[in-house]
Amino acid sequence: MNGKTVAHSRAIMSQVMLPSQANPAGNVHGGEIMKMMDTTAYVVAARHAHTNIVTARVDELVFHTPIYVGALVTCKGEMIFVGRTSMEVFVTVEAEYLEEEKPPQVALTAYFTMVSLDENGVPCQVPRLILTTPEEKKRFQEGKERYLLHKSKRKKS
Amino acid sequence: MNGKTVAHSRAIMSQVMLPSQANPAGNVHGGEIMKMMDTTAYVVAARHAHTNIVTARVDELVFHTPIYVGALVTCKGEMIFVGRTSMEVFVTVEAEYLEEEKPPQVALTAYFTMVSLDENGVPCQVPRLILTTPEEKKRFQEGKERYLLHKSKRKKS
Amino acid sequence: MNGKTVAHSRAIMSQVMLPSQANPAGNVHGGEIMKMMDTTAYVVAARHAHTNIVTARVDELVFHTPIYVGALVTCKGEMIFVGRTSMEVFVTVEAEYLEEEKPPQVALTAYFTMVSLDENGVPCQVPRLILTTPEEKKRFQEGKERYLLHKSKRKKS
Amino acid sequence: MNGKTVAHSRAIMSQVMLPSQANPAGNVHGGEIMKMMDTTAYVVAARHAHTNIVTARVDELVFHTPIYVGALVTCKGEMIFVGRTSMEVFVTVEAEYLEEEKPPQVALTAYFTMVSLDENGVPCQVPRLILTTPEEKKRFQEGKERYLLHKSKRKKS
Amino acid sequence: MNGKTVAHSRAIMSQVMLPSQANPAGNVHGGEIMKMMDTTAYVVAARHAHTNIVTARVDELVFHTPIYVGALVTCKGEMIFVGRTSMEVFVTVEAEYLEEEKPPQVALTAYFTMVSLDENGVPCQVPRLILTTPEEKKRFQEGKERYLLHKSKRKKS
Amino acid sequence: MNGKTVAHSRAIMSQVMLPSQANPAGNVHGGEIMKMMDTTAYVVAARHAHTNIVTARVDELVFHTPIYVGALVTCKGEMIFVGRTSMEVFVTVEAEYLEEEKPPQVALTAYFTMVSLDENGVPCQVPRLILTTPEEKKRFQEGKERYLLHKSKRKKS
Repeated sequence: MNGKTVAHSRAIMSQVMLPSQANPAGNVHGGEIMKMMDTTAYVVAARHAHTNIVTARVDELVFHTPIYVGALVTCKGEMIFVGRTSMEVFVTVEAEYLEEEKPPQVALTAYFTMVSLDENGVPCQVPRLILTTPEEKKRFQEGKERYLLHKSKRKKS
Repeated sequence: MNGKTVAHSRAIMSQVMLPSQANPAGNVHGGEIMKMMDTTAYVVAARHAHTNIVTARVDELVFHTPIYVGALVTCKGEMIFVGRTSMEVFVTVEAEYLEEEKPPQVALTAYFTMVSLDENGVPCQVPRLILTTPEEKKRFQEGKERYLLHKSKRKKS
Repeated sequence: MNGKTVAHSRAIMSQVMLPSQANPAGNVHGGEIMKMMDTTAYVVAARHAHTNIVTARVDELVFHTPIYVGALVTCKGEMIFVGRTSMEVFVTVEAEYLEEEKPPQVALTAYFTMVSLDENGVPCQVPRLILTTPEEKKRFQEGKERYLLHKSKRKKS
Repeated sequence: MNGKTVAHSRAIMSQVMLPSQANPAGNVHGGEIMKMMDTTAYVVAARHAHTNIVTARVDELVFHTPIYVGALVTCKGEMIFVGRTSMEVFVTVEAEYLEEEKPPQVALTAYFTMVSLDENGVPCQVPRLILTTPEEKKRFQEGKERYLLHKSKRKKS
Repeated sequence: MNGKTVAHSRAIMSQVMLPSQANPAGNVHGGEIMKMMDTTAYVVAARHAHTNIVTARVDELVFHTPIYVGALVTCKGEMIFVGRTSMEVFVTVEAEYLEEEKPPQVALTAYFTMVSLDENGVPCQVPRLILTTPEEKKRFQEGKERYLLHKSKRKKS
Repeated sequence: MNGKTVAHSRAIMSQVMLPSQANPAGNVHGGEIMKMMDTTAYVVAARHAHTNIVTARVDELVFHTPIYVGALVTCKGEMIFVGRTSMEVFVTVEAEYLEEEKPPQVALTAYFTMVSLDENGVPCQVPRLILTTPEEKKRFQEGKERYLLHKSKRKKS
């Protein structure tokens, strides 16, 4: 199985936020954004592994700014780290208001851990991640540390 | 009001098609795709004019291939022609199936005519379109012909 | 296969527009109306052919007036033209506001081309259209001209 | 305030049942049908009174046959009885499967009691119901009996 | 087949009402509440019988107070009466507004009759209901009277 | 401002998972569950503070088992830690399949950090948390450590 680059699986998903996605306060429901982020992480992992993909965990999902109905929301997903059967995807959410000429703002970020499954639903090996920039290498190392931390916690509990 | 380039307003919208978007036959409901195309045309027009935008008409919306649940659907919108208060956006829909390593396929295309409205709901002038390639100039000319054809039909009826 | 009249397949679909169908500006999302129109065209074609039906194209979809949340929207579909395996359905959308005693207004119109498919997904013959009024005959002739125009364009491209 | 006929407010609402309206067993969710019936009763009452309308109660809602995804569902609403501020609407639901040439079947029936409210949310008088056939008169009398029965129960509790 | 207590199948379902569940007047759509009530009755019946469950009828569904977007809506379902293959569930709907420290209010009540089906879709026997309090016995008796009343009406029609 | 107990704000939210909540693989979409969890955390925080509540972050959201369409999903939310203006809520998701007599299984867990806002959208003080059991005290201490860890990370970045 040949490795794949970070660029190979990068995904950009966009939607305009509709009134049907609002919470009772009238802003966009946080859960709707999480759903979009989850789908973005799925697309990145599926492009890397071309297998069945399930979400295993989400870490450090942070809401930086609220998002209002009418925003053009763009989720960007990038592969950070790849283990034997799991992949960590970093997802950034940007919101852009089209009535004004302004750059989009980062509204949320999170780390999604996705697992590759074979036809029997058993975790299966994924292609290794080809790292081409110092930034990619640094992030991979940080992802590996999070991966080992979660693994050690699972053993203890 | 300064002109804006075609690149300035280009929009790419992506979603993974869910079972909740299926028609009774189990494919993606044509209306769901039209809704996504309409939103894409809206984003292009809003990026060009930064005003309230309404859809005025849709022409030559053609279904080239069916789209199945699970497809990553990408709508690409590009400004073709700009009149005084109306704008014609060409929308292409591509479907990509992530379980296999294959290029996406064009599934639909259509021309959307969008109108710019001021705060009173009255059509208002939009920036002119700066054309930078021979292809853009050719498409603008074709868009102008469609525009004049629709205008003459409206007068007759 | 016996022919069928225009009256045989005529369809009327009605819904009250809900806040969940609004666009960010608070009006009904154009895409929601297109979805309802597509379903109406599907019902007309299915009543004529009783086979699997897919949408092939939409032409001259025109928004005459905006539709607001709370409107009772009625889509009327009528068979215009029938080729060997394709059918052209004219769809009219009317909006009625129930808080006042006023006749409904035409809000959109469009031509939908639907194709009949057999169990293998291959286009299959549909019953001929029995024309009973001069108006039906005139519209059939116009539909035939659109059909031949689209066919000739397809060959060129 | 002039009276209005039964025919004046009669309403017919139609939708094709989509997979997004299914229950976990794969049939159409009973709640989705009830929602459509409630809307039909609303349209009848609003056409009669042209005021704000709220649902007060539903009686004898009976499921005669299950409805499957893909059915063309038609709700028919008819005014049965009119009190001072309340109206009883009888709603019939029919299901039609378009792949076959068969008449639609009655799937549900129910009585909806709707109340007319003024701008302050206080029940307000509605036009009287003009009865033109013996059948309408008989049904009105039966509606009146149900109305008086509910009223007496409310007093006791 | 051993009997089951009322407590065994009691169900409590809660949701926060979202703008996507509003009717055009901005309150929660009555049909959305009915859908939630139907699901609650389904859960009670399924916990009692552990078979396929369908809704057969709804009686005396009464709206006591309107429900607004943002309310925490809680449906409580309790088995009232059990026949050979049918079960009557009483459903109470409470609305609670979280911005204030106030007890929830009863907004709707209704009786749902659910039927147990075997794998062939044929009504099948359900466990008997073990009654442990005088209140449960009284309600069972009332349920039996409603059951016999509906049965005698069906025979007549 | 008087303190409030953990029991005061505890919340239990339940829904039956519908086909409209499935992902393309046919399981329940992870994003739909996250949305339900977010709402549960909101209810707990709103019951504690009775102010406007926004989600600030989600940590250690772990998928223990997949959830299938038809499951009765129950989210349980419990206040773990309270800072000056922020609250940490632990959310557990259980799935129960009603066709069989089996105890529900834990499917997901996560920590949600919610912030209380005043009418101007500025973070405002919340009641202190009254701890009554050793378990509650232990969890509070752990929550405080997570809180201080996130705070120190924010300062560094």
